[in-house]
Amino acid sequence: MKQRYFDDLKAGDKFQSEAVEVLGAAIVEFAHKFDPQSFHLDPATAERTMFKGLIASGWHTAAITMRLFVRTLNFVEGAIGLGVDELRWPNPVRPGDLLRVETEIVDVRPSRSKPNHGIVRLRNVTKNQRDEIVQTMSAAALVPRHAVGDR
Amino acid sequence: MKQRYFDDLKAGDKFQSEAVEVLGAAIVEFAHKFDPQSFHLDPATAERTMFKGLIASGWHTAAITMRLFVRTLNFVEGAIGLGVDELRWPNPVRPGDLLRVETEIVDVRPSRSKPNHGIVRLRNVTKNQRDEIVQTMSAAALVPRHAVGDR
Repeated sequence: MKQRYFDDLKAGDKFQSEAVEVLGAAIVEFAHKFDPQSFHLDPATAERTMFKGLIASGWHTAAITMRLFVRTLNFVEGAIGLGVDELRWPNPVRPGDLLRVETEIVDVRPSRSKPNHGIVRLRNVTKNQRDEIVQTMSAAALVPRHAVGDR
Repeated sequence: MKQRYFDDLKAGDKFQSEAVEVLGAAIVEFAHKFDPQSFHLDPATAERTMFKGLIASGWHTAAITMRLFVRTLNFVEGAIGLGVDELRWPNPVRPGDLLRVETEIVDVRPSRSKPNHGIVRLRNVTKNQRDEIVQTMSAAALVPRHAVGDR
């Protein structure tokens, strides 16, 4: 699998992740650990909420999105998250949904403080098997550059 | 433990969560599932990164923050996340760190589309045992109101 550097990216580049299925058991497990609320924890109780059934924690969707993004971009040494804005969950994620992430590179610039790195701004859109958007976010990440001798 | 409704909150209210220890094994487990990058996965490899040791995924810190927040505010029926902005990780989380969350209610208003709910805007600041800020975020959540007959 191709490993990427900052230098391999330019504004406008688009990437599509593989798809991953979200199992009901994983929704419940994540909720027990991190987001113990009725609509994430128990199918029967969730039936009586406005969601009419179990839905994933938004933080679970965000974490799944991170996995898909990391595997798709596959940065050498990894991408260090600087911050996230406009994180939204316009539609719920339900058991059995197949999620995939579309990444668009919005901006790239060398880091002033860390000359071996560049700053990448990107937008991630997470969709389900019906092409409904379940999450959107903008992010900035610090990504390694090629060593000068490599270029 | 007191259960809260939208009507129990006003702008300026502040809450402090309990503290929770972040174990190295939990950092690695979360990373394997959701953020498989070297500085989150393996202490030896992480030693050779700019962090000089294992650090938690920002999404892990966000998920831990959610747990602490949910347990502190303890909304009846739960709080439905509408969105998050200005999510930042100014300092890394390392194995053995004790995290706690300070919540400030920024704004409250009734929901126009869902009369049984109100919208709460809040700011969560997550700190470690040395009072260093490891995460900040702003969020909006949909929270149940008292039934009219209850007021």
